[in-house]
Amino acid sequence: MDILFAVKVREEQQAYLRKQFPNCTFHFDGTTDSDALKNAEVIVTFGGDVTSDVLHRAEKLKWIMVASAGIEKMDLEEIAKRNLLVTNVRGIHKTPMAESVIAHILALKRSIHDIGTIQSTKEWRYPFKSTELKDSTALILGPGAIGMEIGRLLQAFGVKTIGCNRSGKQANYMDAMIPFNNLVEELPKADIVISVLPSTEETKGLLTRAHFEAMKESALFLNFGRGDLVDEELLIDVLRNEEIGHAILDVFQTEPLQEESPFWSLPNCTVSPHISSKSGKYMDRALIIFEENLQKYIKGARDFTNIVDVQRGY
Amino acid sequence: MDILFAVKVREEQQAYLRKQFPNCTFHFDGTTDSDALKNAEVIVTFGGDVTSDVLHRAEKLKWIMVASAGIEKMDLEEIAKRNLLVTNVRGIHKTPMAESVIAHILALKRSIHDIGTIQSTKEWRYPFKSTELKDSTALILGPGAIGMEIGRLLQAFGVKTIGCNRSGKQANYMDAMIPFNNLVEELPKADIVISVLPSTEETKGLLTRAHFEAMKESALFLNFGRGDLVDEELLIDVLRNEEIGHAILDVFQTEPLQEESPFWSLPNCTVSPHISSKSGKYMDRALIIFEENLQKYIKGARDFTNIVDVQRGY
Repeated sequence: MDILFAVKVREEQQAYLRKQFPNCTFHFDGTTDSDALKNAEVIVTFGGDVTSDVLHRAEKLKWIMVASAGIEKMDLEEIAKRNLLVTNVRGIHKTPMAESVIAHILALKRSIHDIGTIQSTKEWRYPFKSTELKDSTALILGPGAIGMEIGRLLQAFGVKTIGCNRSGKQANYMDAMIPFNNLVEELPKADIVISVLPSTEETKGLLTRAHFEAMKESALFLNFGRGDLVDEELLIDVLRNEEIGHAILDVFQTEPLQEESPFWSLPNCTVSPHISSKSGKYMDRALIIFEENLQKYIKGARDFTNIVDVQRGY
Repeated sequence: MDILFAVKVREEQQAYLRKQFPNCTFHFDGTTDSDALKNAEVIVTFGGDVTSDVLHRAEKLKWIMVASAGIEKMDLEEIAKRNLLVTNVRGIHKTPMAESVIAHILALKRSIHDIGTIQSTKEWRYPFKSTELKDSTALILGPGAIGMEIGRLLQAFGVKTIGCNRSGKQANYMDAMIPFNNLVEELPKADIVISVLPSTEETKGLLTRAHFEAMKESALFLNFGRGDLVDEELLIDVLRNEEIGHAILDVFQTEPLQEESPFWSLPNCTVSPHISSKSGKYMDRALIIFEENLQKYIKGARDFTNIVDVQRGY
């Protein structure tokens, strides 16, 4: 069985996989633009390179292991038609992403940026006000693995958490749960609004002007899910008019964010270049999930970890 | 009974206290340099202004309410001789200080400073590595109210906590406890070393070259206690030679930190102008403790909250 790695893995990881699976032929080419594509039964990819053309050339393909959370860039129609198995690494981002979310929030609350500024001018003064995270209320859009980890940490800081998903069905580490339909009524309670929603038909453009109008003027809005949650022109307008306090954006409609985007220079906007899930531990964790699933695949078992429902999109 | 406030409190707080204690005469002068000093039975102060001269003039003084944690600037000998009651606001700093400690640590781990730098140049790239706080080991010098709150939050992030005090006696939210004497042996285990120790005869100069030599080369050192914990020349040398990873300092031997101090411009040093305990909630919390103690004082009860042992110094 041929396995094509379109993601880069370290040499010791390559050696480990070859030793664990002596009957598999691994191609650690780091790209789908490879001769090995033709015979590959399994592709390990970040998702963006699984185009219609790649799928067409991968005649023997049965399983796409996506080493990220989002599959929206892949040709889902073709994947569904060929009934290909798709698994992802849902959940492995939870630690670095939750730590990044808390880091960004606390940096604002505890004046970390301002402290850096006064240090650069060697000034022993503090013409700014620090506040506390404790006793805030946070609304978390998408309380899945990542959202629940964010909720768990926020609760440790004494923050009230309101989770929000399609159905309003219960999630861990949420003091309350609401469905998407009740968002406008709940938003006035939130000091912090955090989205970690994937991109699906239901979440695209989910946040409208009415939602931002419902937020507190001091509200902190974090989008760490996908950039198409809100129209960027609208969000730029909201920030320019200071209708909310601050936005912290790790995702954008078009990435890399173009140099002419106003987000870069808005004083009440933090631009993070889609790195909140990054930490040195990513590929190790992804390979643990891949290894478990590959054992099952070889045995003919079907109880894979993190099967993606291609129709739903996550 | 005359009560002199050498600290500034808001008008609504003044009105509240006058209403709660109609038999007390409040002098909200905001300074000990006041005629009211002569007749004051109680002084509410940040501590730095209770000099020998002030004590000499305060003939009727019985109780010093220190609206901070440290009493090292007061004339303790004279206070002990006159057997004056001293209370402080130990513990009320715990939320803002613990949030600041976590904010600074996460800012480094999750590249918050670097994200700000690349935003200022509109660059969608990340020539830096983010790491995770999870699975680190933190050594906390001084696991009192603040240190335990830091320990509680760090444990929520999956950090192993080692508390260190004089005796090694148990403290909450510490996975292990060690006495000062065992520091050199334990320091090699710590990724993060955090001091929130007060200034006492035992803590002055507690950290020596041997301690910094025992730390990991990557160690993150935070001093949020008092500046005299370590000789600054030594610490500057340690940072210049990159013997540890980074220092985050909220306290210094002389404050304000002088413009010519090398700390300001060392790339592996963060200078915070002694603001980690600041948040809008400080005086409200201090007055809650003062109000409770004043009720007891008037009734003749002696079970005050936060009595300071002037001999021990905290």
